[in-house]
Amino acid sequence: MKFCSVCGAEVTLLIPEGDQRARHVCTACGCIHYQNPKLVVGSLPVYEDRVLLCRRAIEPRLGFWTLPSGFMEIGESTLEAAIRETLEEACARIEIEDLYTLMNVPQISQVHLIYRARLMDLDFAPGEESLETRLFTEAEIPWSDLAFRTNTLTLRHYFADRQAGKFAYHEETLHSQA
Amino acid sequence: MKFCSVCGAEVTLLIPEGDQRARHVCTACGCIHYQNPKLVVGSLPVYEDRVLLCRRAIEPRLGFWTLPSGFMEIGESTLEAAIRETLEEACARIEIEDLYTLMNVPQISQVHLIYRARLMDLDFAPGEESLETRLFTEAEIPWSDLAFRTNTLTLRHYFADRQAGKFAYHEETLHSQA
Repeated sequence: MKFCSVCGAEVTLLIPEGDQRARHVCTACGCIHYQNPKLVVGSLPVYEDRVLLCRRAIEPRLGFWTLPSGFMEIGESTLEAAIRETLEEACARIEIEDLYTLMNVPQISQVHLIYRARLMDLDFAPGEESLETRLFTEAEIPWSDLAFRTNTLTLRHYFADRQAGKFAYHEETLHSQA
Repeated sequence: MKFCSVCGAEVTLLIPEGDQRARHVCTACGCIHYQNPKLVVGSLPVYEDRVLLCRRAIEPRLGFWTLPSGFMEIGESTLEAAIRETLEEACARIEIEDLYTLMNVPQISQVHLIYRARLMDLDFAPGEESLETRLFTEAEIPWSDLAFRTNTLTLRHYFADRQAGKFAYHEETLHSQA
């Protein structure tokens, strides 16, 4: 950030009065431009004993498999974001069960929320951001071709919980990339 | 947003190729400036049968009571944010128990996370952003002087769950102000 989005003048990094952190502050209008972590929201769609994954048609991690998820938008709820991302990336309709994982990725200032969901029907297909969409049994999961560690951890929790017969909320902090 | 924070040129609202929503796009460098919801993270600190609240020294809702909470910062986890905000606003040390409520406030593009926590000792005091900090029993809660509906709902869930003898995660979407 080099310029003020309100007035177009240059910004400078300084600690505002009463604050403890350096912020981008406009040298002309004084506006403080805070930067905050972003929410990435998605779902873990389940159909009988299989889960739905999407193969990414876009960077980052083009060609790798992911749970349907993406940046939460202004004006929507986390539930709405999970349902919308699943529809956009996999043209799939889901019924949300519960919040399943919260994964902090402080290195890239993201918080990932994944909801456990029931896939309503088999009428799914790749959306614009996907090359392929497919249901996988546990044995079929392409572990070494998953796009993000947040997904890998969520899927590992899912199969372990399913084996144990009880699903519980999981929260983790990743100390490297997503 | 009127100017590009990268190059200082004017931005315009348009739907980028492959996108479905209008974004602020720079007329000179083409940078797309996404806007995303913000996370507000805090705690519900409990000491025996009482909960810790802070009376706000800043706007909005100056003079009203709140659970210690605030905007999550770049580079921290949600847990760290809850612990930091409790230390900053109430000079209080807590031990986090679990994620207790997630409150969507789409009208102001915020997602509030409150963790249930144990207040470690009675050595708390108002931080810079608080006028007063105090422990309240259920009967003493200043319901009509609470700063935010997200807090009111979280406290109502807390006392109902405590009465029922079982704490569960709660998620809600508020269709008006926080």
